Amino acid sequence: MLDLNRKVLFDQSLERLKAQLYELAEFNETPEHGITRIVYTNRDLAAKHYVKEYMKEIGLEVSEDVMGNIFGKLPGSNSDLPPVWSGSHLDAPLNSGMFDGIVGVLGAIEALRLIKESGLKHERDLVAVIFVSEEPTRFGMGCLGSRAMTNQLSSEDLVKLKDKDGISLYEAMKRANYRPDKLEQVRIKQGEIGMFVELHIEQGPVLETNQKEIGIVNVIAAPTEVKLTIKGEQRHAGSTPMNLRKDPMPAAAEILLTLETWAKDSTKAHTVFTVGDLKVFPGASNVIPNEVVMTIDSRDADGENKEKFMALLNEVIQAVCAKRGVSYELEVKTHDQPAQADSLITNTIKKVCEELKMDHQVLASGAYHDSMIMSKIVPFGMIFIPSRDGISHDAREWTEFKQVASGVQVLTNTLYQLANEGVGSNE
Amino acid sequence: MLDLNRKVLFDQSLERLKAQLYELAEFNETPEHGITRIVYTNRDLAAKHYVKEYMKEIGLEVSEDVMGNIFGKLPGSNSDLPPVWSGSHLDAPLNSGMFDGIVGVLGAIEALRLIKESGLKHERDLVAVIFVSEEPTRFGMGCLGSRAMTNQLSSEDLVKLKDKDGISLYEAMKRANYRPDKLEQVRIKQGEIGMFVELHIEQGPVLETNQKEIGIVNVIAAPTEVKLTIKGEQRHAGSTPMNLRKDPMPAAAEILLTLETWAKDSTKAHTVFTVGDLKVFPGASNVIPNEVVMTIDSRDADGENKEKFMALLNEVIQAVCAKRGVSYELEVKTHDQPAQADSLITNTIKKVCEELKMDHQVLASGAYHDSMIMSKIVPFGMIFIPSRDGISHDAREWTEFKQVASGVQVLTNTLYQLANEGVGSNE
Repeated sequence: MLDLNRKVLFDQSLERLKAQLYELAEFNETPEHGITRIVYTNRDLAAKHYVKEYMKEIGLEVSEDVMGNIFGKLPGSNSDLPPVWSGSHLDAPLNSGMFDGIVGVLGAIEALRLIKESGLKHERDLVAVIFVSEEPTRFGMGCLGSRAMTNQLSSEDLVKLKDKDGISLYEAMKRANYRPDKLEQVRIKQGEIGMFVELHIEQGPVLETNQKEIGIVNVIAAPTEVKLTIKGEQRHAGSTPMNLRKDPMPAAAEILLTLETWAKDSTKAHTVFTVGDLKVFPGASNVIPNEVVMTIDSRDADGENKEKFMALLNEVIQAVCAKRGVSYELEVKTHDQPAQADSLITNTIKKVCEELKMDHQVLASGAYHDSMIMSKIVPFGMIFIPSRDGISHDAREWTEFKQVASGVQVLTNTLYQLANEGVGSNE
Repeated sequence: MLDLNRKVLFDQSLERLKAQLYELAEFNETPEHGITRIVYTNRDLAAKHYVKEYMKEIGLEVSEDVMGNIFGKLPGSNSDLPPVWSGSHLDAPLNSGMFDGIVGVLGAIEALRLIKESGLKHERDLVAVIFVSEEPTRFGMGCLGSRAMTNQLSSEDLVKLKDKDGISLYEAMKRANYRPDKLEQVRIKQGEIGMFVELHIEQGPVLETNQKEIGIVNVIAAPTEVKLTIKGEQRHAGSTPMNLRKDPMPAAAEILLTLETWAKDSTKAHTVFTVGDLKVFPGASNVIPNEVVMTIDSRDADGENKEKFMALLNEVIQAVCAKRGVSYELEVKTHDQPAQADSLITNTIKKVCEELKMDHQVLASGAYHDSMIMSKIVPFGMIFIPSRDGISHDAREWTEFKQVASGVQVLTNTLYQLANEGVGSNE
């Protein structure tokens, strides 16, 4: 029997993962500016083909559902037990990096290879999974594959969701030879999967700041996305006295600062608050604007705190707009609930880290992942590895290959232990 | 001798002005969306031709300089005295109204017509003037004609200033058959003009709010225009804790609110402060921006207060950016000094208003005008008429024709009295 933690295995893994990460980075629409791989484009399909071929090569049983989610199964000795899944996504938003999602896919496959080659006995089937389009790049909605699996994406959505050229998700699936008309075949019932573990880069600065090799996610902070439109009165910037203005711009600034202060004070709930976009109309230096449209993105690891935030948001916007004589429209685009990781899984990851003597810490995930969506039907856990300078969705995204291999080592041992876990604790 | 204030003259003026305003509104590039008349376009040249023909028709001596400033002279009995000028501009920014500038041109011509037809004796020459491009629409700099006259526009500027298609002011002048190579001929020496009076719509809500027919400008609040670029660090909006961010967006909001509060408290100096445009990069709801670029427009009737504002601006930007770990670049694009109206001229306007029993008030002009530029070489005064809802630079810009005629009545009597003023008080 092989020892999963041997140095020689670690070095072999590191070399394989490094080579595969660079090879996958070649499936790229923007070779001069980071990585871009958009769902259902030729490059996306080619990348998936490459990974499928590799899964077959190492002896996994490969299948694909009618929308393009891919499964590579390593059968266990007791296939009647609900399997353990692990995986992530291959798509990459505009000009981003070569690690986000990819390490979770390649890591899961590498883990299954190591377990297979070890000859160690495992009860449950182990399945490496590639989810369709975790990134919202093309259709404005993320986690398309996991949403479809968990009945959070309807046939109507396929028709409604469109890319910038007006091509619907339905049409894009058809053109890529998938079957949008058979969406129901993608769905997975509660209980069909035993556990789900996702390896991912942190996409934030916490592990690096705290000098930790491994992060163990205890909760995924769920996003609330709001579009706020503030309407005032367009006037001449020179000839309109301050007390006769209805200017939406300082109203936006006041709302922003009040909510930011609150978020800074809510550190316990891992609250974050971001205005990532703000547009001013008509947008001329000498004209008081008539309209400001701003995005509000808030994430929270605590469901109650999320509701407090929403109450405050409404209260602040109303008060500021009333005071300044401007009107507003509020559109809540997303208001998800935080997803708690499963304690059995997180404890297993923690135990593995301790055995491997890896510096680790428990943390909340500020970014959402397929895990958040999958949490609707299956207990999950997440393993984070550091992101240099906390940068992601950018060509500068970087994680050392040694850190990737460490993450895969933790994942491998975790999957092996979970594959041998009793059924009772998995539901 | 005719009485300049007779009701019958007023009614005739009103009908003529109304007809001419509507006729000039036909020289328009955007008939469906307000008025657009951009300098040196065919429509601008045609509008000027129309007005020149009318000047000739009523017996003014018409001339045009090498850049297209137009002069219609009504000789006085003593042409050795420096003349009294009155006028404004004919160009109109994108989708604006039919009064801004135009009433000052048509009003001056109407005043000269009334004085001529009255047969009343006046000493000084009276000159109606049309300035080239008061609006910065095409070349990003306003008051081109008056700047050239007062030596505030150089031959280098003609080459440097370009429109959005890359056509230089020099080239545009040439194409319109003017002589950019002879710019020095446009210049006017100090003392060549005795006085300048400009009739203009207020472009603000003060006269309407106070129910006044006439505004007498005592000072033109000079603009300070600043472009502020704040640079932070682009990060994932979900996975970057609040205390590890370098977000330029709340920094911009904090700077805006601090300066707005100060401007609101400086009512005596007619301080106004506007952020009319703000751009966020990359501008995605789930990304902490790396850059915010905002315009700052401040106007002040008090020169000392302007310097206080600039000191505060620098101090606030530095403090906020240091506190938030972001960097900045500050570009001061304009920092003009307020222009004081001439007391002889404003007193004359005031006396005329009293004689005509017109409700009037003294006020600062928040918007700048050719008068501000001309103040470098000639004592000036301005007569304001109300703007409905304070709206200007908009298709909804409106002033009742009766209010236009009232303004012209004040202008006519003012010009007549100034034309007979002794020389001593005019310099």
